[in-house]
Order: sequence, then C-alpha cells, then structure tokens
Amino acid sequence: MSLLTDTIAAITPVDRAARAQAEERQTQLTKPAGALGHLEVLGNQLAAITGQCPPPVPEPGLVCVFAGDHGIQERGVSPWPQEVTVQMAANIAQGGAGVNVLARAAGATVAVTDVGMLSPVEGCRDERIAAGTRDFLTGTAMTREQAEAAIEVGIRTAQRAADEGFRILVPGEVGIGNTTPAAALVCAFTGADPSEVTGRGAGANDEMLAHKAAVVHAALVRHQLLGGRGTDDPVGALAAVGGFEHAAITGLLLGAAARRLPVVLDGVIACSAALAAVALAPDVCGYLMSGHAGAEPAILCATHSLGLHPLLDLGLRLGEGSGGALALPIVCSAARVLREMATFSDAGVTEEHVE
Amino acid sequence: MSLLTDTIAAITPVDRAARAQAEERQTQLTKPAGALGHLEVLGNQLAAITGQCPPPVPEPGLVCVFAGDHGIQERGVSPWPQEVTVQMAANIAQGGAGVNVLARAAGATVAVTDVGMLSPVEGCRDERIAAGTRDFLTGTAMTREQAEAAIEVGIRTAQRAADEGFRILVPGEVGIGNTTPAAALVCAFTGADPSEVTGRGAGANDEMLAHKAAVVHAALVRHQLLGGRGTDDPVGALAAVGGFEHAAITGLLLGAAARRLPVVLDGVIACSAALAAVALAPDVCGYLMSGHAGAEPAILCATHSLGLHPLLDLGLRLGEGSGGALALPIVCSAARVLREMATFSDAGVTEEHVE
Repeated sequence: MSLLTDTIAAITPVDRAARAQAEERQTQLTKPAGALGHLEVLGNQLAAITGQCPPPVPEPGLVCVFAGDHGIQERGVSPWPQEVTVQMAANIAQGGAGVNVLARAAGATVAVTDVGMLSPVEGCRDERIAAGTRDFLTGTAMTREQAEAAIEVGIRTAQRAADEGFRILVPGEVGIGNTTPAAALVCAFTGADPSEVTGRGAGANDEMLAHKAAVVHAALVRHQLLGGRGTDDPVGALAAVGGFEHAAITGLLLGAAARRLPVVLDGVIACSAALAAVALAPDVCGYLMSGHAGAEPAILCATHSLGLHPLLDLGLRLGEGSGGALALPIVCSAARVLREMATFSDAGVTEEHVE
Repeated sequence: MSLLTDTIAAITPVDRAARAQAEERQTQLTKPAGALGHLEVLGNQLAAITGQCPPPVPEPGLVCVFAGDHGIQERGVSPWPQEVTVQMAANIAQGGAGVNVLARAAGATVAVTDVGMLSPVEGCRDERIAAGTRDFLTGTAMTREQAEAAIEVGIRTAQRAADEGFRILVPGEVGIGNTTPAAALVCAFTGADPSEVTGRGAGANDEMLAHKAAVVHAALVRHQLLGGRGTDDPVGALAAVGGFEHAAITGLLLGAAARRLPVVLDGVIACSAALAAVALAPDVCGYLMSGHAGAEPAILCATHSLGLHPLLDLGLRLGEGSGGALALPIVCSAARVLREMATFSDAGVTEEHVE
C-alpha cells in the first residue's frame, strides 16, 4: 500500500447524523426558519464534517500554496514571463502578496511549498519534483511516478496541518501558465468543451484565449482525454495534462478528508484538483466548500459538477488561494451561529404563528 | 437651524483625489490589473470616504440596532405576533441574536436603541418617541415632529459612535411589521410598483404577500406618494408611511456621512432609509456600501437606485443588520490590500508583458 492508497482507504463519508442534528438545532435558534440562508447550510456541513453539533469554530486556518512551473508555458499561453512564478513565490514567502494580506486579516497562516518551480526560492518548503513540468503537447506533463509524488506532497501537507492543530485548509497556488492545465483537467474530468471552459487566466487577450483553447483541445486529443475520460484514471490524467501544484492540491484534499478537515476552494486550479480528488475518492466532496465563484469559466463548470455553492462572487481572479482566504470568516461565522445563538426557549421569544 | 439641517449642511462629497490615488496604487500592487475585483473598488471607496490613501482599516465597527413597533401590524402584514419586537430587542440586548453572533465574529459591537417599541426593554438605550407608530392607512404613521425626532436620534447615534472611535457603522433594526413601511418607502422614493417590491419579510405566505402589497398601494394612494413623489419631501414621506427605526437609520446615515464614516447597509429597512437619506443629501451615497443582497425584492430596487454592488448574496433574510455585520471583514480586507500588499518594485516582480 502506498500513502495514496492508504489515504483513500481512510476517507469516510461525512456524518449525516450530525448534519441532521444541526438542521434540527437551526430550527430552534431565534430566527425565522431558514433566515440565515446559506450560512445555515454551511454550519450544517461543518457539523457533518466534524461529526459534532454544534461544530467547533474552524480556526486557525492554513492556506497551503503550492508553486510550480509549466512546460506548456513555451506555447505562449500567458502574457506573463515565466520568471514571475519564482518572484511571486518569494513575494508570498515574504508576506507581501494578496493572499498573505487576506489570510492575515482572517487570522490564517500561509505556507508556500515548492513542488517544482524552475529554481528554488528561499522561504518555500522544498518538495521539488522537477524543474517544471514538460510541454504536454509533445508528451505527458509528468511521469506517473512524478504525479503520485506530487499528490503525496499534498497528502503530507494536510497531515502536518492537522497535527499542528489547523482546523481548516485553503489550497492556493502560484505558477505562470497553470490555468491551461487546469482547463485541460476540468475538460478531462467533466467532458466539457475546451472552448467553453478555457479562460483568460492572469490576462490573456482574445487571440491568446483562442490559442489556449486550441492547446487544451490538442492536449485532450493527444492524451485521449476527450469525453470526460479522465475519470477512468485520475492519476494518469493529472500526469498527462496537469501540473505539480494541481497534483499536490489533489493530495491536499484527499489528506484533508482523511483527517476530517474542511477545505475552502477557490480558483480554477483548486477546482480542477477537486475534480481529480473526487474521481479518486467520491466521499471527498462532502468536505469541500467553494469560497469564491471566480472569473474563469472552468470554475463554474467544476463547482456545478461538484454541487458546490460559491460563498463569494467579487470578481477576484488573482489565484494564490485569495478567494478562499477571504471566505474564511464567513465559514467561521456559520459555526458560531450554531454555537452561540440563543434558542427560542432560552430567550423567551414567541415562535411564528402557524395557522 | 436644527440638528437635521446642520447635519445635512456638514455633509461633503467623498474625496475624489484620494480615490484616484488609491486607483493608481492598485495598479502598482503585485497582482494583475483589476485581479482583486470588487475588493479594489471597495478599497478605493474607503480612500475616498476617509480622504486617505491608503485608507485606515475601518475597525472597530458598531452595529446600531433601532427597535420600534408599527401600527400597520394591525392590518395583518406579518405572521409573527407583535410582542416578538420587545422579545427580540431583549435577545439582542442580551447578546443571543444572530446579529450579535455575526458582529462578535467580526470584532464589532452591537448597541440597541428603543425608538418606539410598545414597551421599554432593559438593556436598550431609551430614545422612545412613542409606543409604536400609528396605522398609516387611517392617518400618518408619525407626526412630522416625531419623524424629525427619530431622525435626530439616528444622527446623535452616529455622532456618539464617531466620538467613541468607531470607524464603520452597520444600521440594524428589529420591529415586527417593519418590512411593510420599508416597501412603501422604496416605492415612495423610486416610483416602483408595490406588487414588484413588496416581499415576504419574516415569512408571509402568498396570500399575506398579496395583502401586504395591497396595503402598500393603498398607503401610497392615501398619502399621495405614487410615482416616486417621496423625494419632494423626504421627511414628510417618512412621517406618512415610515417607521421610527426607518427614520432613525435615515439620521444615522446622515450623521455618518457628516463625520466621514463608511456605512455597510443590509436589509430592506436600511435600504429604504438610505433612499430617504440620499433624497435629503445626495452626497450621502458615496459613504454607503451594500453588505448583502437580501431576499426582499425592494433591496434590489433600492441598491440599483443607489448604484450599490452587494458584497454578499447568501440568502440571508434575518434583518437586524446581520448581513452588514457579516460583510465587515471583507470591507476591512479591502483596506488592508491597499495598506499591506507589496508593490512590483518592492517585491522585484516583473510586470505583465505589454505587446
């Protein structure tokens, strides 16, 4: 047994009895039935994930940023030069990027792991698989062994986070060119058409966008992943058209579910990894929340496929895990509602007239 | 000169130069242009409100809950018995309501002011105008003097909050039956049709909803407020079809703008009061943010009319200021982005290729 197979075997469905208890408790709190809307759904999900009603407040949070480079970048799929990956990883390690600001504001910690940038960066945890993936139009992005190694980096990251007392995880990423493998994975796992789900990433213009979609289509043809065939062999699909950070996040989600930690997704890279994780272990889905709707069309496709309701829709398209970090206070509030609100009988409030 | 006219005279437009400085700073931060979406717009607005770039982080926040009762409740416009107003005001004063939980989670304080419940409640600040408004189908809800007095309660609340060091305000309310005067005010100030903007409040069924809309229409006819004529005499419109808490929130917004404090609106009562405040002093609009979209159709009508973009849309329909409290961390994060993110030159990150 490998760490991957062990982890998959350890994942159990979320606790339906605890969810039912939470649903019942919501009706006793001093509010009209359902008046806290999606915050109630979220609180009930936290009860199901942790098996406790009321659920513990899921803090502190850890934003796990995985950084990698991409061979497909040679094909001209991003307006940003590839050196920006290491520069931005350094910026995150130094605390100056958007995700750092949003995580600090939410009381969360940011940790950056190098899973395969072109060169190492000070302040990043070294889990380098290789100096970037290969161009997946001429071969697979990674070997199968590399993909499994990257997944296991993510699993170990989740295990360490759980051991260190973090109670909620946000996957983040940095990697110039990484929305192209993400679009390819979303197509590979959902059967969506590349022209519908490929997006502008960090700023592709119309011409570059059409080129990106053509690259994604060609990759799906080459690796026989059209028609949603990625679900037949999720690790193989990650190896073929994925990226190191996509594979690491897949592992993070598996590891989080195995330790019953909730995960707040945002961005197309995390969403594509979620499809891979759910293909490997369907019960992962119950542990996932969507922090932000995002501008990339593949996010909508993936969240729809996963049955997730994005908490925020503020037009963020930064990546890094920024939308997940921004959503953390809302997730904590959902737990606090179940823990702290008075019931009708506590507060001596008359219940609604029922005719 | 009265406190009301003094306050209106003291309101100045938000600072366009500070907003322009913030817009310029956003382009220097280590992110693709516009990649933080509405968070950037919000940060720029905070710069404009405070006249500072970067803007101070707007904390601590104060949720100002105004509690009142409504003569129109005699007409059967809510499924909840009227005694729930004093019960819920007591619950809020004791810290057990939804707004208390969400405010605490955001590090904000809740203060409840009795502007005219049927009977006084321990723990509420006593600023009682009367024991409830009158039925506005048989006369005006308040006298003009009562409406002005309620507005001035709100103004003084904002002044005290500013003096005590609060840096952002969230108007909240409790008052069984108060979505009916809110719908009437939204119609009076926008010219909207009662059948389009009247909502279910805290749980009206289809029959009660149709009855509420008919009550609103009859009130607009009786008080000659059809066609958006409320803007001719906003205080008169508040007196005719408003409520004490609607008038107090109108004053709160005027007082906040006069002291250059941002305000996060949520709910149909606060939105209807915002229309009144903007009718009295158009420059108030620049100080307003919309915390939550809300389920009442009048909210959409009002936020559209005010040009506001709701930060959240989580299906909340609790009132109390709960949606505004839930949005506070997002507003603080918008300020932190401008204060804390590294610039391209600070971080040594290469800017986007421009062809």
